[in-house]
Amino acid sequence: MAFIRLLILLTAILAPINMAHAADALPSWNDGPTKKAIITFVEKVTDKGSPDYVPPADRIAVFDNDGNLWAEKLVYFQLLFAIDRVRALAPKHPEWQNEQPFKAAIEGDVKTLLASGKEGLLKLIAASHAGMSASEFRETVADWVETARHPRFDKKYTELVYQPMLQLLDYLRSNGFTTYIVSGGGIEFLRTWSERVYGIPPAQVIGSSIQTEYDVVDGTPILFRLPKTNFINDKAGKPIGINQHIGKRPIFASGNSDGDFEMLEWVTSGDGARFGLILHHTDVDREYAYDRESHVGRLDKALDQAADRGWTVIDMKNDWKEVFPEVN
Amino acid sequence: MAFIRLLILLTAILAPINMAHAADALPSWNDGPTKKAIITFVEKVTDKGSPDYVPPADRIAVFDNDGNLWAEKLVYFQLLFAIDRVRALAPKHPEWQNEQPFKAAIEGDVKTLLASGKEGLLKLIAASHAGMSASEFRETVADWVETARHPRFDKKYTELVYQPMLQLLDYLRSNGFTTYIVSGGGIEFLRTWSERVYGIPPAQVIGSSIQTEYDVVDGTPILFRLPKTNFINDKAGKPIGINQHIGKRPIFASGNSDGDFEMLEWVTSGDGARFGLILHHTDVDREYAYDRESHVGRLDKALDQAADRGWTVIDMKNDWKEVFPEVN
Repeated sequence: MAFIRLLILLTAILAPINMAHAADALPSWNDGPTKKAIITFVEKVTDKGSPDYVPPADRIAVFDNDGNLWAEKLVYFQLLFAIDRVRALAPKHPEWQNEQPFKAAIEGDVKTLLASGKEGLLKLIAASHAGMSASEFRETVADWVETARHPRFDKKYTELVYQPMLQLLDYLRSNGFTTYIVSGGGIEFLRTWSERVYGIPPAQVIGSSIQTEYDVVDGTPILFRLPKTNFINDKAGKPIGINQHIGKRPIFASGNSDGDFEMLEWVTSGDGARFGLILHHTDVDREYAYDRESHVGRLDKALDQAADRGWTVIDMKNDWKEVFPEVN
Repeated sequence: MAFIRLLILLTAILAPINMAHAADALPSWNDGPTKKAIITFVEKVTDKGSPDYVPPADRIAVFDNDGNLWAEKLVYFQLLFAIDRVRALAPKHPEWQNEQPFKAAIEGDVKTLLASGKEGLLKLIAASHAGMSASEFRETVADWVETARHPRFDKKYTELVYQPMLQLLDYLRSNGFTTYIVSGGGIEFLRTWSERVYGIPPAQVIGSSIQTEYDVVDGTPILFRLPKTNFINDKAGKPIGINQHIGKRPIFASGNSDGDFEMLEWVTSGDGARFGLILHHTDVDREYAYDRESHVGRLDKALDQAADRGWTVIDMKNDWKEVFPEVN
């Protein structure tokens, strides 16, 4: 039919435009082996003539968030949200003035807060993330994201996303990939802004969660957030969370810490072409430089094994032309 | 640019063709108020000029599976799979000959099996669904689906899907909806065949699950299925499972039993245009007739409240021209 022939003609006319665009799809990345490895992988899995061709339905890419899509220093941003929440709620909880970890949170004493360990952090999460409906929680996060600012950069936290990674997400999607976040952070915290900031809709966000309960309050159904852990989407939890949400093994994994080790291992040990990517924070001037000794985003075992396992390591300082987006 | 103008022209030329197709999108449904209610809803949420317009990203439709997309009588098909598995494994478990519910499963005594209650069924699930990797489990299900046949209809279970519902899934998707399964059945059981049979990929399947563990066996990572319940995606669990997987409230819900009550309630009490659909099994000749007294797919409270809540009830006998697809 004439229409089909017309479409084929249009495709042929537009193909060179698409290719020209692809060559420039990662402008914030310096030319070099890292950028080349990414492009080579994407080209071979999208080329129908290649033995490594992967159909679009299986082009699934997973990205850690903290320290990988946005910054995580000096401490995870979601922890700063929890501290700000506790401070806002403190007038209603006079007992917190003498009770850890709340006292430390109110005083902004992150060191003592972290020293309170897992038990202390769970108390903080319970006080700041539970006891309200899912929609109330999302509003709280949305307000915080609009107002809170990073002390060193004096920017909103959602402006401290990595411009080269935003381009990588776009580049993969324009090549038929579906992109997911796979984070140790809270699933509902991330979903509040992931679509706007990363172009990743709520259904493609996988994260840690607390339990919810279905209640009908005065005739209105709500999902009420309980102060109980449901799932920790970190380390060996990442492949489990991926399987639970996606039900397929991704072919591309991107992370920056040992918390991503099992995800990288799971993804890159599947059949066919696979890509593992590690972001190494090496840029003390434009961002931060840290790895083996850091208390957030510790990168040790994954860095040691990257070469043997064929994972590509991004050297932030040398591979990235820019770090954060220009904000107008 | 000329290309854009050309596209607009093509769209204008093709629009009447699409509309002609839409009028005939549900050929297995008899004309009448049920079919009309569905089409009216879809037309108003997809019409940009309508006050009820919903953008494609929010056009989310959720479907129960058992008794809603495929049959569930005389007993849930996944239970028949579990019985067949226990029989296949019985030679390695001589102790099962004298232990319930295994003895009943081996003897095909479904009545005694069901009388063993929740505890008995969990034992059966543990023996038939756990103790292997996720990929081994999928192979087992795929084999069963290819060979097992329904005693009354002498068809494969995946042939006992409802042709009018397959058309409804297609019709919604061709109108920009994303379709999900939200089942009390097992998520991995469903994912094995949901894409082929319903066009619903694994990431759009929400179901009950057992716990999995990430292990590396001889250098190969696996997800090992444990004999422990993770999540029961039924009744009030359905809105919770929907929120966990999708992170948005759907606008269209379809179910057939009181197990879908909370899902219907949750979906239809959101803002804007909403649609609740209940399949009432009224066709003893072509399928089955059951509701308030049935031990599977009990439909009582949801049927009572359907009119007040504005839910549309399908009368299978009168609303459907055909029940199952013609199989060649």
